[in-house]
Amino acid sequence: MLTLQEQTATDELPLSYLPFISSIKKRGLKLKEVACQGYPVGWYGEKRKSTNRMVKVICYYLDGTINLYMRPIEGITIIVLIDQMTIASYIDRLIVPVPKANGTDYMGSKLQRSSHESNSIKIVQPDGPSFTLDDGNTVRWGDWKFHVAYDMRAGIIISLASMFDAEKENFVVAYFDAGEFGFGLCAVELEPSKDCPENAKKMPNVICIFERYAGDIMWRHTEDAIPGKKIRKVRPEVSLVVRMVSTVGNYDYITDYEFKQSGTIKVMVGLTGLLEVRGSIYTHNDQIKAEVYSTLIAENTLGAYHDHFFTYHLDLDVDGHENSFVKNNLKTRRVINKSSPRKSYWTVVSETAETESDAKIQLGYCLIPGGSATSPLLSDNDYPQIRGGFTKYNVWVTPYNKSEKWAGGLYTDQSHGDDTLAIWSLRDREIKNKDIVLWYTFGVHHVPKQEDFPIMPTLSTSFELKPTNFFQHNPVL
Amino acid sequence: MLTLQEQTATDELPLSYLPFISSIKKRGLKLKEVACQGYPVGWYGEKRKSTNRMVKVICYYLDGTINLYMRPIEGITIIVLIDQMTIASYIDRLIVPVPKANGTDYMGSKLQRSSHESNSIKIVQPDGPSFTLDDGNTVRWGDWKFHVAYDMRAGIIISLASMFDAEKENFVVAYFDAGEFGFGLCAVELEPSKDCPENAKKMPNVICIFERYAGDIMWRHTEDAIPGKKIRKVRPEVSLVVRMVSTVGNYDYITDYEFKQSGTIKVMVGLTGLLEVRGSIYTHNDQIKAEVYSTLIAENTLGAYHDHFFTYHLDLDVDGHENSFVKNNLKTRRVINKSSPRKSYWTVVSETAETESDAKIQLGYCLIPGGSATSPLLSDNDYPQIRGGFTKYNVWVTPYNKSEKWAGGLYTDQSHGDDTLAIWSLRDREIKNKDIVLWYTFGVHHVPKQEDFPIMPTLSTSFELKPTNFFQHNPVL
Repeated sequence: MLTLQEQTATDELPLSYLPFISSIKKRGLKLKEVACQGYPVGWYGEKRKSTNRMVKVICYYLDGTINLYMRPIEGITIIVLIDQMTIASYIDRLIVPVPKANGTDYMGSKLQRSSHESNSIKIVQPDGPSFTLDDGNTVRWGDWKFHVAYDMRAGIIISLASMFDAEKENFVVAYFDAGEFGFGLCAVELEPSKDCPENAKKMPNVICIFERYAGDIMWRHTEDAIPGKKIRKVRPEVSLVVRMVSTVGNYDYITDYEFKQSGTIKVMVGLTGLLEVRGSIYTHNDQIKAEVYSTLIAENTLGAYHDHFFTYHLDLDVDGHENSFVKNNLKTRRVINKSSPRKSYWTVVSETAETESDAKIQLGYCLIPGGSATSPLLSDNDYPQIRGGFTKYNVWVTPYNKSEKWAGGLYTDQSHGDDTLAIWSLRDREIKNKDIVLWYTFGVHHVPKQEDFPIMPTLSTSFELKPTNFFQHNPVL
Repeated sequence: MLTLQEQTATDELPLSYLPFISSIKKRGLKLKEVACQGYPVGWYGEKRKSTNRMVKVICYYLDGTINLYMRPIEGITIIVLIDQMTIASYIDRLIVPVPKANGTDYMGSKLQRSSHESNSIKIVQPDGPSFTLDDGNTVRWGDWKFHVAYDMRAGIIISLASMFDAEKENFVVAYFDAGEFGFGLCAVELEPSKDCPENAKKMPNVICIFERYAGDIMWRHTEDAIPGKKIRKVRPEVSLVVRMVSTVGNYDYITDYEFKQSGTIKVMVGLTGLLEVRGSIYTHNDQIKAEVYSTLIAENTLGAYHDHFFTYHLDLDVDGHENSFVKNNLKTRRVINKSSPRKSYWTVVSETAETESDAKIQLGYCLIPGGSATSPLLSDNDYPQIRGGFTKYNVWVTPYNKSEKWAGGLYTDQSHGDDTLAIWSLRDREIKNKDIVLWYTFGVHHVPKQEDFPIMPTLSTSFELKPTNFFQHNPVL
């Protein structure tokens, strides 16, 4: 991982480097309006493992905007050696127009008040919140209890989460992995009443906890089939959210863990902030004849197709340490005799990983994917795919191993993919009735669109862990 | 469709029918605790079309609960002719235990206050709502304008929805189809502050409109790459929801149309209420040796596997009447020469329905499925599947035709599937640059679980219509 000090030093390096100063002058730009950012270089098949920590630096032009990412200065390649903090390679290849500043601003002060602006709307709790925060880390809310920790790489770590039934309990641990920059390290201060609602508590400045009420219905029924009676019972949905925002350069990642009274845990990642764009000679779609793997989102501005994958390390101990992974398949059963006028039914065929099982129902927690159980589009032999081999499947199950903590490997900077979940799993270990870890990867293939310019509306994706024949009845009555 | 009068008369018919009274006595039950409900009979391959409107009546036992659906009286088959309002067939086959009343209640009065109960939480708007309701049907909110109508079968109909950009506009019409009972006819009165939040307006008693604020972030960015500046800009997400609840017997369907400031329309259906269960001899899973196509959700109570499919009729006129349907496929492109150290990239290949197109970007609205673009599990030749042939694909596109309004056909009661979307589409009409209708079907395969007893936590499913290169930039700055 890059430390914040290393990142700052890297970003300032080109500004006093003579060839770079000359490149800026040659483009007719003002040096004081230039800001630079370092990016990991990756690995593209070089045989020898690099012993140098290095980054590629990309510079942007401000001059009338604060949205630097929409104004990349193209044609210059700068490689910085981190440990020496020197420029190891500098090439000024060609001059490409810098996209214009016009329309890139997203700050209110420069914009006229939008007609969309609503009257103020607030979530209020006159009697205060219903959750408590013991010793700064342990949250209790209704029957839920869990521990919130903070990790420089993972960001929020939820552990020892349990919801008590008559006699059952369960534990959940989730890690969030953010390769080279660290989700924890990039956590940003949350703005009151905007990043989190009015009723939120901060825990330190980068994590907030609040009760969420969106006007949704947890369950309801209107009964009019009972003669002489009119029954209506509605229970509004109130849940508890633990939120963190990590800004990794241009992108802002919102991470929510939502605990529901029904025992469900919903995990959500929202993507917002600024696209990483390339400057380009194109000002209109008709000019583009070659494949650019991008959308022209504004004049001279290409937004490249790219992926975001998120892997959660779910160390579920449902009703004890020994767990199994059961896959439920829905299967059509054809009616072959005259036992029914129907021609088919469907049923649930449960399959316990590795060996068959005659379990009729699944007891425990069920993973419910959201809309984006995305699989990779890169070829298996492409270097980014080798390094991110863990994205090949959405679900992996491994026996718990203390050293297998990060799906992308302990060190990801310029990694060759030899320490990933995909490699560990080749050992094909026993996973039935073991202390197992469920790794769930989901994500988005992001095809940028004009509406993402100059700032992206939040694109969110989620999954749920839902109790399934775990409680003996609806736990919220 | 069955009228409310017909439904009430049907439900009362068995209670004065002597053979039924004797069946109740034989089971040791009290007649005054019995309540009955009529259900459509469907079609199971009979060659001749029935000219009779008929329903099957199922009776339930109250005696200590108001949750009749958890206490079916099994073993009795009653067929009622609607037009004559007489019992045409009555068979008492066998006696099965009635599931017990214990634990089936969902009303607060009988339950002790749950430890989950939160302090009060409210959405407040001190300056009142930001939307207006002209002539009782036209809603204006920010740049959005649309018309809300009410149909006995479809429920809410949103029409003439538009969001004004500089010069563009678009229209959306959506129908909601609810076969035999009518979503509109079954709409129930909404409970203030529970079915809809405190800031909602009712429009009549069965539709509510409110601004939704859940503490979510519409877009944000923290910028620290500009030397000497610290920038943070966060815009909270506030949307407008139009909601209706339809209770069809035991099930409660929540229908939300959510209009976002970003131009996105999110359509959500929530399923709650009471499962339809069967009484059974089983009290424990170990006793079940045969396939029962069900989960034993409580003693003597089987919850059958079943499906819910919802079809939306989306008559989108994006920037005019003539529209085309473009399918965007993400494709891997292998690098075959040495032009890049990479081995692959991915790109977007657009395909206009019927003929190829070289369009580089999609202009217009994009349909984003939620987690449940479910396909049917029944065999094609099974009668329910023939009648519901429109569920075979999630997406259908037809040229607009005034008579093609209901995906399941104008008359669905005992229909033979000869007037459905699947049949109309066999004509394979031209759809390029036409006034087209997009039919989107989504749903859930519901495998009941213990947590659905005695009342189901809301299971929701959704899709979005998202502007994609339609506006020239993020419309909410």
